[in-house]
Amino acid sequence: MSKGKLIIIGGHEDKVGDETILKEVVNTIKKDGRLVIATVASTKAQEVGTEYTALFKELGVKNVAVLNIEIREEAFDEARVKLIDEADAVFFTGGDQLRITSQVGDTPIYRGMHALYKRGGLIAGTSAGAAVMPHTMLISGPSDESSRMSAIEMAPGFAFIENVVIDSHFAERGRMGRLIGAVIQNPANLGIGIDEDTAIVVEQGKRFRVIGSGAVYVLDGSTLTYSSVSEEQPEGILSAFDLRLHVLGDGDQYNLLERHPLTTEVSTA
Amino acid sequence: MSKGKLIIIGGHEDKVGDETILKEVVNTIKKDGRLVIATVASTKAQEVGTEYTALFKELGVKNVAVLNIEIREEAFDEARVKLIDEADAVFFTGGDQLRITSQVGDTPIYRGMHALYKRGGLIAGTSAGAAVMPHTMLISGPSDESSRMSAIEMAPGFAFIENVVIDSHFAERGRMGRLIGAVIQNPANLGIGIDEDTAIVVEQGKRFRVIGSGAVYVLDGSTLTYSSVSEEQPEGILSAFDLRLHVLGDGDQYNLLERHPLTTEVSTA
Repeated sequence: MSKGKLIIIGGHEDKVGDETILKEVVNTIKKDGRLVIATVASTKAQEVGTEYTALFKELGVKNVAVLNIEIREEAFDEARVKLIDEADAVFFTGGDQLRITSQVGDTPIYRGMHALYKRGGLIAGTSAGAAVMPHTMLISGPSDESSRMSAIEMAPGFAFIENVVIDSHFAERGRMGRLIGAVIQNPANLGIGIDEDTAIVVEQGKRFRVIGSGAVYVLDGSTLTYSSVSEEQPEGILSAFDLRLHVLGDGDQYNLLERHPLTTEVSTA
Repeated sequence: MSKGKLIIIGGHEDKVGDETILKEVVNTIKKDGRLVIATVASTKAQEVGTEYTALFKELGVKNVAVLNIEIREEAFDEARVKLIDEADAVFFTGGDQLRITSQVGDTPIYRGMHALYKRGGLIAGTSAGAAVMPHTMLISGPSDESSRMSAIEMAPGFAFIENVVIDSHFAERGRMGRLIGAVIQNPANLGIGIDEDTAIVVEQGKRFRVIGSGAVYVLDGSTLTYSSVSEEQPEGILSAFDLRLHVLGDGDQYNLLERHPLTTEVSTA
């Protein structure tokens, strides 16, 4: 099990007000830590890189670098690999999660990031950078619509966290339907839906704490008694009986190993 | 307990294709049954009344009348009361559910509709006409957003069905957040979220069956172990641990008295 920390953000984290989530990143790495902004998911990499560099510098981080990878070959580039080898933290911006895995998967950069996480570093990601964290990632599915078998697309993710599937922009885009669809395909995966300006801070892959202004939805399929998942009826509504659902707000915690939530009130009682 | 039937529709029922839901209304009352279209929720009552009259006549219903109530006084009008006393079914159109209860609550029309339901008649309603069915109705709350205490507004409903709260346009408008908010305020009420072009057919208040192209979400708070509901923190995210969630599709059933779902497959096995 890794000693590292993950900060998994539902997108649109506040950048002008309290900046609660960005400050959590800064507090984790300390102001002299080396932070790499990974813009590989984005098609506007330069713009996004410049924006986050300015934000983190304003928050006092001295050592900020941008890692962009336009073509897969660049994930083998020695200067880039060195950047990761010497980093304390990586922050994945939003964009397209398939760009992250297809450009970086199984390259020296990929192995460097896993080594960083193993030695106790921080991996943070927002939006697509959040969805990419698990072994299997949700890449598309309906928003504001209930799920049909045909509509859920998944792919191999970056594998920083096991036995979960993560969705971002959760309440804002009405994504409960697709998270249910993803969970019931294999209830071994816990579904975690993260609102905008909201994040989970995962410690050693064992537990997480919620920060930010929205909610985190945890959908546990271990209690499932029936589902209609089948390739035979791709257009039918996915039925599912007896899912367990938790809604967590700022300060609430969740034990990933034992699969149960804890509130700050309860845990300090 | 009533002998009657309710058809509770999540809005935008199909009117040009299969018309599954409108046909369920027609099959219930038979073609020589007397159907009253209640347009009281709508601000475009005449237009809506004409549209549904044409639809039901095309489907073979011979005896269709429109009941509109612009001002509360009209809910005491003898000709209108007679219409309900002689009806086999009432169909509430969409609009504003508070218009239904404020114009009709505790009037002879209200009592006439309850008498109709008690003697085995059909009460159907779509959108606002669906939300109005329970003792307590959800009147407003966030869409595509997680719930805060301050955001959920409820009011006394038409009381055709006990111990439930109903929301319509469910997946389409991302209303899971507000249904959770409504349920955890008092978990005695089962939350039922109905997608567009989807309905529940309730028999004698005991059980229902799902029809139509979308899903029905049943949110059961009886397993709730913790919630953060409090008037003291109106702007905080509503946390809730250990809710039970079912997603039902066409043909699936739910036992309201024992609070469990049944699939057609299981029940015919």
